[in-house]
Amino acid sequence: MPPPDPDPALGRMQRKRLSRRSFLATASTGAAGAAIAGTAAAGTLADVPERLPGAPVGARSARSPHVDLGRIPEATPGRRNLAPEDAINSKTPLHKLVGVVTPSDLHYERSHSGVPDLDPAQHRLLVHGMTKKSLVFTMDELWAMPSVSRIAFLECSGNGWENWKAADETLTVQHTHGLISTHEWTGVPLSVLIDLVGKERGSTWMLAEGGDATGLARSIPLTDEIMNETIVAYAQNGEPLRPAHGYPVRLLIPGWEGNLSIKWLRRLKFGDAPFMTRWETARYTSLMANGKAKQFQLRQEINSVITAPSGMMEIRPGYNRITGLAWSGHGSIVRVEVSTDGGRTWADATLNRPVLPKAQARFHLDWRWDGKPTKIVSRSTDDKGHVQPDRKTVIGEMGTNALFHYNAQQTWSIDAAGRVRNVLS
Amino acid sequence: MPPPDPDPALGRMQRKRLSRRSFLATASTGAAGAAIAGTAAAGTLADVPERLPGAPVGARSARSPHVDLGRIPEATPGRRNLAPEDAINSKTPLHKLVGVVTPSDLHYERSHSGVPDLDPAQHRLLVHGMTKKSLVFTMDELWAMPSVSRIAFLECSGNGWENWKAADETLTVQHTHGLISTHEWTGVPLSVLIDLVGKERGSTWMLAEGGDATGLARSIPLTDEIMNETIVAYAQNGEPLRPAHGYPVRLLIPGWEGNLSIKWLRRLKFGDAPFMTRWETARYTSLMANGKAKQFQLRQEINSVITAPSGMMEIRPGYNRITGLAWSGHGSIVRVEVSTDGGRTWADATLNRPVLPKAQARFHLDWRWDGKPTKIVSRSTDDKGHVQPDRKTVIGEMGTNALFHYNAQQTWSIDAAGRVRNVLS
Repeated sequence: MPPPDPDPALGRMQRKRLSRRSFLATASTGAAGAAIAGTAAAGTLADVPERLPGAPVGARSARSPHVDLGRIPEATPGRRNLAPEDAINSKTPLHKLVGVVTPSDLHYERSHSGVPDLDPAQHRLLVHGMTKKSLVFTMDELWAMPSVSRIAFLECSGNGWENWKAADETLTVQHTHGLISTHEWTGVPLSVLIDLVGKERGSTWMLAEGGDATGLARSIPLTDEIMNETIVAYAQNGEPLRPAHGYPVRLLIPGWEGNLSIKWLRRLKFGDAPFMTRWETARYTSLMANGKAKQFQLRQEINSVITAPSGMMEIRPGYNRITGLAWSGHGSIVRVEVSTDGGRTWADATLNRPVLPKAQARFHLDWRWDGKPTKIVSRSTDDKGHVQPDRKTVIGEMGTNALFHYNAQQTWSIDAAGRVRNVLS
Repeated sequence: MPPPDPDPALGRMQRKRLSRRSFLATASTGAAGAAIAGTAAAGTLADVPERLPGAPVGARSARSPHVDLGRIPEATPGRRNLAPEDAINSKTPLHKLVGVVTPSDLHYERSHSGVPDLDPAQHRLLVHGMTKKSLVFTMDELWAMPSVSRIAFLECSGNGWENWKAADETLTVQHTHGLISTHEWTGVPLSVLIDLVGKERGSTWMLAEGGDATGLARSIPLTDEIMNETIVAYAQNGEPLRPAHGYPVRLLIPGWEGNLSIKWLRRLKFGDAPFMTRWETARYTSLMANGKAKQFQLRQEINSVITAPSGMMEIRPGYNRITGLAWSGHGSIVRVEVSTDGGRTWADATLNRPVLPKAQARFHLDWRWDGKPTKIVSRSTDDKGHVQPDRKTVIGEMGTNALFHYNAQQTWSIDAAGRVRNVLS
């Protein structure tokens, strides 16, 4: 046994400051096994600030005043300096977040008529249509029923729309890809409600309608996948939904476009055909290059983006860790490749394990930048064999007039000064 | 194709209110396949409140004013009505949360000298001792290094201490088990820092010291498991650590007692024996029934608790969903059994999938209460074969003078009026 550690008698310890120097080291990073370079200084305890007394523990843990985290409220693409009441969506700061779980207050928002403040004691969910019974559920009843929790991404079908036509080089990844977030969602499996009301066999579509003023309503095809995976959700990351995310109850359809996951859910109506609401005739269709429009393009396709280094960041030559997020509405990400030479060659990034189906996956690649201008880009592959397309492929099919489901590989250019900028490819 | 849905022309719809009635239905809940009973009323759209306009989207999503969530600041067991400055821990409201992820502001707190507000620009981490180099890392340097994210529980070794000697029947599960939370943690793998400083082969222990005034410091055995799994963490649930949880950097050792996961981490020192700080001589030892004390009892043992119905709740005869949390510092939960007759017979609860290693697991059991007084209790099993002990076994080994690592099965009694109360067994 050694003697007790000399601390806290700091005064007795050597305080000579060593001259700071940069160093270079090679380390095993486990799965990556790649070379790491860093800059850290040699030093002693004299180089570490003194310990500090603190504030009392409390009922909640606030953020540090040193941490600046916020979303960007936006109207249509390119209109970011707007009056608060004009904002229709608010984007998650992907460049400032790590891991895959999004803090509850920073989950992206997209609303068609603002955020209603619903009283859970008054709110009701009607389930009716092609069913044996028409039932009205209180929120207490939903909370008391069988439940399921699942970590899943939710993504606005408009995510990526900034880059359909042209690349604004002032955009960050928050602008280009901030309409996606990942949460643990909890609620009643849709299948339980279906059993309770006795859905008729012939019913193949379900209308979901929101309690916001617009009454956003969408027709949802009752495939086995949707019947098995859809959650009538009342909680996010362990706590009750926040008003912006549908309090007191919303639909959550993992892997499908966000606007199907109706917030402030007030009714589910079963039928034998799509209900053709204005949202699926006028709004959520995509004009293709051939002049026809895609309708009921409901699944979020495979996607990925490098979150660091990303738009408006600056890097230095030497070691740079490339990290980002990949996701697919089809299932689980199994591979992410990264190119650091504009798409000529590709290297496999390391995926943080476990990768959960229909959740974002975090990837990493150790990279040594030689200081020369280049472009970095990622592409993902899922367990159903889908590979994220390049921009040329997406535009070839869709043209540049569509607004939704842009999932092309995202390229960031890096100039000789290390400035990272949004480019089309 | 049917005609467009009549909504939003609500006025045209039938508004006759049907008399509310209770109903009983049997539904398949998938894995559980159990009978469910519920109460919901027959009704139409007239029974659902009108839709409401809303507030603008913003930079952050606040909680609903209808949601009341807070921790309970506490001093020693039984002292809950205290001045804020006397609180040393603050317990997570497990009875109000669902799923397994804990909201960042509600993760339990335990501090020995309050919550210091450290400036990340000034803070440093020294890594030294039996190493080839002594290095001082800035926070920017740590953020730029290879990283890993992991969903893991963190638990105070004092969790459960309320029930060592006697059962206060006014306690909720927040009181009895609120010193555990689960987050996604992100940071630098300890193994990367070890490679950078060149730890000597003979070093088998590591001292970790905090930057709070107390300078909480613990000796950590460098087993393969700890070397592989420990994270020098700077983020929780995607965002930078909050001050109460160690901002700007802390240790995170999945599965081991919380006080080893040193917050406000200022140095790691490598040695060839434990450093015998006062925390491991005077504080974190457990007096056993035989008069000897356990020292370096570091792993959090297998545990579980029913969170609903739980202490101070009231239930009604009929369908009641039993739900709770199970966890083990050894690995993954593979089974949770629930008894609704005070431990005479047991039924397998359903585990929410996937179950992650060293994270909390959520379990459910459908139950029909017949209205007679009874006791409910859970016991968990992990993938290493550990089974949560009953109270008699725990007390038989430890007596009633220990304070730490109480992991006995938690029993809740239910009287004829449906009142749920904390009892020893």
